Amino acid sequence: MELLYKNIIKNELLQLEETLISSISSDIDLATEVTGYVVDSGGKRIRPVICILVAKMLNYKGSQLIKLASSIELLHTATLIHDDVVDQSATRRGKESIHSKWDNAHSVLVGDFVYSKAFQLMASLDNQEIIRILADSTNRISEGEVLQLSLKKKEVLSKKNYFEIIDRKTAELFKASAITAATLASCDQDKLISLTNFSVSLGMNFQIKDDLLDYFGDEELTGKKIGKDFEEGKFTLPLIIALPLMSEEDRSMTLETLFTENKCDFDNIINLIKDTGAVGKVEEICNKFSETCFKELENFPESDYKTGLIDIVENINSRVT
Amino acid sequence: MELLYKNIIKNELLQLEETLISSISSDIDLATEVTGYVVDSGGKRIRPVICILVAKMLNYKGSQLIKLASSIELLHTATLIHDDVVDQSATRRGKESIHSKWDNAHSVLVGDFVYSKAFQLMASLDNQEIIRILADSTNRISEGEVLQLSLKKKEVLSKKNYFEIIDRKTAELFKASAITAATLASCDQDKLISLTNFSVSLGMNFQIKDDLLDYFGDEELTGKKIGKDFEEGKFTLPLIIALPLMSEEDRSMTLETLFTENKCDFDNIINLIKDTGAVGKVEEICNKFSETCFKELENFPESDYKTGLIDIVENINSRVT
Repeated sequence: MELLYKNIIKNELLQLEETLISSISSDIDLATEVTGYVVDSGGKRIRPVICILVAKMLNYKGSQLIKLASSIELLHTATLIHDDVVDQSATRRGKESIHSKWDNAHSVLVGDFVYSKAFQLMASLDNQEIIRILADSTNRISEGEVLQLSLKKKEVLSKKNYFEIIDRKTAELFKASAITAATLASCDQDKLISLTNFSVSLGMNFQIKDDLLDYFGDEELTGKKIGKDFEEGKFTLPLIIALPLMSEEDRSMTLETLFTENKCDFDNIINLIKDTGAVGKVEEICNKFSETCFKELENFPESDYKTGLIDIVENINSRVT
Repeated sequence: MELLYKNIIKNELLQLEETLISSISSDIDLATEVTGYVVDSGGKRIRPVICILVAKMLNYKGSQLIKLASSIELLHTATLIHDDVVDQSATRRGKESIHSKWDNAHSVLVGDFVYSKAFQLMASLDNQEIIRILADSTNRISEGEVLQLSLKKKEVLSKKNYFEIIDRKTAELFKASAITAATLASCDQDKLISLTNFSVSLGMNFQIKDDLLDYFGDEELTGKKIGKDFEEGKFTLPLIIALPLMSEEDRSMTLETLFTENKCDFDNIINLIKDTGAVGKVEEICNKFSETCFKELENFPESDYKTGLIDIVENINSRVT
């Protein structure tokens, strides 16, 4: 079934796909081929969707929106390509990752190519404020990546550091999607603050749900292998909340498995986490973030586009992919 | 001995180093640490030097120059960090490379961090035209990297493809250094064309000399291992010119060694190349590029800064590092 929010901006989403395809074309065949492979694998396009819905909700009528939304999706795509080298993930969006199908060199250089295309699209907007926002976001995102790397496998990740990492790695680009759209639509300061709160909360919720699905999702629906985060030694919220609630023996075993890359009985780990009641606690946190989203949207008049944004929040709440 | 051109812009070069250090600082310690390690290792700073000398020669008196020059050096630094992952080079500027000292993940993510810092500096210039030039350059450079990757070890590289690659990978950022400086100084169209020809020729000359030093340089002076390009299966101009001049037997042996990563007697390869007279032919090409540089500079009135640019051309002509 078509998602409601996708229906509301059907034409814009078609234009988005066209712009993505045309903007990654290059006279260097390999660049077009590898980038096309990634861009074609779909993905939710959630960041450009937010960008388009926000600008439309604010009555933006100009011609820059699709270019802006495409540049944000390309930025996101570039980070995914480079992430896969870091995590050595074999798959991405249900397909072989670039470094599996080609090699690390292809991932690094094609990732850089996609960044440069995002950068060209941004430059073509001729809007200094938007360029500044996106430059700052790109920086915060890359700092988030380095922070995550510096904390990886060293010790138990604190809840504070976890939230800092997902704020930078995920919520930051959700925020940039909303506030660049608002900047394009010359939105006032109060509404800008509402949209900042809305988009950061949405991004946090999206990422925490993602991390929950990594433990409890359905592989067939998500297209991702269950337990990947744990296998890679990543601490995410379900584990961070469950650990102090486990018996000392279970906690030691869990941490040892995580740190030493031992083969593990992942079903057992899942059961240990479930038994602590951590899932309910994670969901409570998610609910708080979605309440903020709904509350902030109350500051905007009713419109189809606002309905679309509400639909996104609800979809993230019940997300299974 | 201090180089003449470095003396002419001594203060600006001090400011450049300060700006580089301050602009890479981050509240994520690991990002500052790894980036500082690379930025501290020096390097020739040839791109910012060109940028500064050109702007000064054109009487630019504003406050944006050091920021622009720093952003260009950071762009260059980011490409070097990522290049090292691609080539798996153990050293860079006489020190261990990032991926040797840390690992690939650090190289990819810290490279992205440096790009983002370059991008922030550019955005702070508030000059749309300069952002457009640098976005286009970043794109041409990354396409050059992908082109080189697509042609690597497949077949003998043609002279045409070699020139295309070095034009994109090296000359492009030399060009951007000169023409963004000229844009800052509101230079007229004729002079812009002269500066484009000058900087592209300078970049080509610089890279060809670099490729020559890879075969015939002094390891102690260059801080680079002789024969690295050959070992990595890279075709550069000395080899491309020598191959058709070799006996069929020597050519087959040379190509087989290059393609199969066999251990080779590199002294023998060097002698084979020398015997063809290729070195003289490469130097002829270099001389043509420097003649263009000198000729284009005639279009500018005499000044210390112009003398500095002439000094750079002469230094590249006689470069041993």
